[in-house]
Amino acid sequence: MSHGFFTIISREDFEELLKGFAPLGKELVDLSLASGRVLAEGIIAAHDWPLLDRSCMDGFALNARDAFGATESNPGYLECTATLPIDKMPSITVQPGECARIATGGVLPDGTDAVIMVEYTGEMDGTTIEIRKSVTPGENVMQRGEDARAGKVALEAGTVMRPQEIGLAAALGFEKISLVKSPRVGILSTGDELIEINQTPKPGQVRDVNSLTVAALVQRAGGIPTRYGLVKDDLASLTDALQTAIDENDLVLLSGGSSIGVRDLTIQALESIPDSETLAHGVALSPGKPTILGRALGKSVLGLPGQVTSALVVMHVLILPLIRHLQGDSKAFDATRRPVRKAELARNLASKPGREDYVRIRLEERDNAPPLAHPVLGKSGLLRTIVQADGLASIPADSEGLYKGDLIDIWTI
Amino acid sequence: MSHGFFTIISREDFEELLKGFAPLGKELVDLSLASGRVLAEGIIAAHDWPLLDRSCMDGFALNARDAFGATESNPGYLECTATLPIDKMPSITVQPGECARIATGGVLPDGTDAVIMVEYTGEMDGTTIEIRKSVTPGENVMQRGEDARAGKVALEAGTVMRPQEIGLAAALGFEKISLVKSPRVGILSTGDELIEINQTPKPGQVRDVNSLTVAALVQRAGGIPTRYGLVKDDLASLTDALQTAIDENDLVLLSGGSSIGVRDLTIQALESIPDSETLAHGVALSPGKPTILGRALGKSVLGLPGQVTSALVVMHVLILPLIRHLQGDSKAFDATRRPVRKAELARNLASKPGREDYVRIRLEERDNAPPLAHPVLGKSGLLRTIVQADGLASIPADSEGLYKGDLIDIWTI
Repeated sequence: MSHGFFTIISREDFEELLKGFAPLGKELVDLSLASGRVLAEGIIAAHDWPLLDRSCMDGFALNARDAFGATESNPGYLECTATLPIDKMPSITVQPGECARIATGGVLPDGTDAVIMVEYTGEMDGTTIEIRKSVTPGENVMQRGEDARAGKVALEAGTVMRPQEIGLAAALGFEKISLVKSPRVGILSTGDELIEINQTPKPGQVRDVNSLTVAALVQRAGGIPTRYGLVKDDLASLTDALQTAIDENDLVLLSGGSSIGVRDLTIQALESIPDSETLAHGVALSPGKPTILGRALGKSVLGLPGQVTSALVVMHVLILPLIRHLQGDSKAFDATRRPVRKAELARNLASKPGREDYVRIRLEERDNAPPLAHPVLGKSGLLRTIVQADGLASIPADSEGLYKGDLIDIWTI
Repeated sequence: MSHGFFTIISREDFEELLKGFAPLGKELVDLSLASGRVLAEGIIAAHDWPLLDRSCMDGFALNARDAFGATESNPGYLECTATLPIDKMPSITVQPGECARIATGGVLPDGTDAVIMVEYTGEMDGTTIEIRKSVTPGENVMQRGEDARAGKVALEAGTVMRPQEIGLAAALGFEKISLVKSPRVGILSTGDELIEINQTPKPGQVRDVNSLTVAALVQRAGGIPTRYGLVKDDLASLTDALQTAIDENDLVLLSGGSSIGVRDLTIQALESIPDSETLAHGVALSPGKPTILGRALGKSVLGLPGQVTSALVVMHVLILPLIRHLQGDSKAFDATRRPVRKAELARNLASKPGREDYVRIRLEERDNAPPLAHPVLGKSGLLRTIVQADGLASIPADSEGLYKGDLIDIWTI
């Protein structure tokens, strides 16, 4: 057992090392499976969209000049000469003094440049329409090419495909699109004290909690987890399992071994793989300090802290962003994208300068005031503290703590 | 074509109607698939967890009395009589004046009540350990039963299973757990102007954008979408398709038809199904007013506005919460759970009192200041406005608007 003194680097430096791993290659994916993923190649419109000027209201297509000055008390009158089909090109031309009944989505006929909503009109007899409001040219009209122009990039490479971007790709006729691949993430658990979930622990034994917890987080970030199960605490077994996992995945996470001995073994196993190196032996995070970063065959290998709470914090702070980064998300490490709630700190929180602290927080809801943020104390090897927590408060490395009454961001996890 | 005047109800009243639909039944699910879902039955621990007092550090197990008063300059000395195995019950008893080497996770032997971290000790010779810091009883020890007590509820019914709750269930040996079912959501598109994505639109025709957009959102909320494709705009076709979708799903969404005619047809089709009723003809939301809520065979049926932006807003504000509610999430409609960012409004935003407004917002990032929130103007039938938007600003029904410079919550979508 070594003493575990090692050089630790800041969270920022650790992130720079993670950013050194390039995003994955591309694949063609069905548009229905694209949600949350990143465009590898831009989408270029084959035609203008909308194809032609279309109405965005139910009403009457007209020339704005013919409604000039119309008001409730001084209406105008137009002859309605046609009811336009919604799904066809109109064959008529609307003459001055005329209008045509149009439904939402309908194409504007020649001679018209605006639509008046049905609410501002009245039917006088079979064909005369009362116009109770003036309209401006283009009013209630979606113009040809407003969403996309033929031959132009409608969605750039690097775009995260939200439901609305999926909608635009659908409108332009893309059934499949080119996306950055989803990282395959191998998860290994080490530690001779670990047993499978379906086994009954003897004194000293612990079920493998981290594999499933980590896999759930990987999935949430869009990775594809594969659990390799329990690996024995000896160099040959660990090296073997690690080599297989590296071959079969884009990123490998080792978890479970919580003692310094297992940590040292992890580094030895990593370094015994050809073309590998250890990039970081620790990070100035609390909890989460004993996190190992290595590179093997160009892929990232991370040794997670054994304590479940520490592993969870490291997953949220560093590894879920890495998984998003490997998927091509250029803002993966941008902390402003963390979902937060404002809360009022219920007590002082001291912190050791020089490391970034993540404190587990339980929120107490209040009427007409931000929730109260109660730090959840307890050992990081326990699950209770993180189960009771609604989120995390972060204390920057250059701060000595936060004060009772401070309005702070709680990162909901 | 009717004139489309109809009674609209407030968002709150609409939500109350949605809450009237009961959460779904339960099913036994593999723990690895539980992320984000809700416990239908509580999890009761079969044994204490931890099983026994365990160390949360690498160090030496001792009796706190034996380290009393020890400091860096005035250390104490103990005889180390054993190195404890991590995966077995210790067989020794530690006597006064003695200690035992212990790894993180190791079980405390008889005669000890605390652990001193290896960092605060020194090895003098083969067996004498220098103790440089006092410890309190229980220090660095996870107590038996701190996470869960035998026979007690460890996780209550209604708990949302985050990765940490999955961890606790794993620690207690649950390979499968009882969860509320995931809602099956049928999606129908109506409108004679609609064509499939792989078809080329003629003037007046539009590809079916809403089906895929809505399906992506349903999945995000944990629902299981089934797309039934395009349905013709006639009563017989629509009633038929609706009946099938209701039989095969827990919730049915109709989308695509944007004209008043299609809206009326939707209500007719719904009401021609036995044991059905229309519960709401509209909601005081902008965009999103022409949303229809019905009930058929005890299931909810929603007619979405045809305009894609309006449909997206209604999905976010009302239907994703409904999908979470059907999964047993008791806080599904709690607006405080929306992910938000604080931003400074870049211009005044007027709003008509009496309806809740959702304005599309593009965020402009700034150094050392909250981002600037720029309203994205444009017709709600266009995709551009919602593609350019980073989120939504909401203006309550009792407000006449927001002012330039206001610091507001932007709901990132």
